[in-house]
Amino acid sequence: MRRMSETLFPTLTDHDALERGAVLAPRFGADGLLAAIIQHAETGEVLMVGWMNAEALRLTLDTGVTHFWSRKRQEIWKKGETSGQLLPVREARIDCDQDAVVIKTIPGGDGGVCHVAGFRSCFYRVVEDGELREDPASRLP
Amino acid sequence: MRRMSETLFPTLTDHDALERGAVLAPRFGADGLLAAIIQHAETGEVLMVGWMNAEALRLTLDTGVTHFWSRKRQEIWKKGETSGQLLPVREARIDCDQDAVVIKTIPGGDGGVCHVAGFRSCFYRVVEDGELREDPASRLP
Repeated sequence: MRRMSETLFPTLTDHDALERGAVLAPRFGADGLLAAIIQHAETGEVLMVGWMNAEALRLTLDTGVTHFWSRKRQEIWKKGETSGQLLPVREARIDCDQDAVVIKTIPGGDGGVCHVAGFRSCFYRVVEDGELREDPASRLP
Repeated sequence: MRRMSETLFPTLTDHDALERGAVLAPRFGADGLLAAIIQHAETGEVLMVGWMNAEALRLTLDTGVTHFWSRKRQEIWKKGETSGQLLPVREARIDCDQDAVVIKTIPGGDGGVCHVAGFRSCFYRVVEDGELREDPASRLP
């Protein structure tokens, strides 16, 4: 997969072009991946973090539906294909050094993203005094 | 640093405890790091993504001020120490499998987080038709 990234996206070596230019030239890590933050387009809630290789990012941008690289299964993962929790791309952003993206979406299906049943967001636990407390507001209605 | 993580946080092997329990047992990657998403506590805007090793996460939780691990400099990075853009922790959340955190904050100093001057958020470029467009709304006032 890593070899493919060269053909799927250009590589920029110029620092200013990378940070201020109009060319999408994502920088994948040593593992060939970048972090993709999934954010609810209306509430702003951070729903999950996934990982994309070049092919997953290309598929996400070309189809308008979020694809990840599953580190566990080592394969392209069209999120929601079985659960119905598809993540249509309302907006995609990339950061200054082009090694992380934010995808704004409104999840399909039951409106959740987490594999832990009943939770809309994977970030359903708040750290309080060193312990974790489940936030009922992170639950699906 | 990776050796230290064993003494700074417990390790959970039980799947249910990891996902539903009250014990904070972060899972750092092969590189000893986890992704930390910095979100504005009031607007919900995703401001940046940083990386934390066990020591950085421990410092963040113990001091209430966000610390990262600088991959470039290979050292603990108290964000804002020189720029004034400190990131006080208003809320910290961890995800289902405890390998990513969200820190809600209101940045200090000029209110921005990005090293690219003038931008409040690192995610100041929107992907549109395969090209990047700077979003004036990501600028500092």
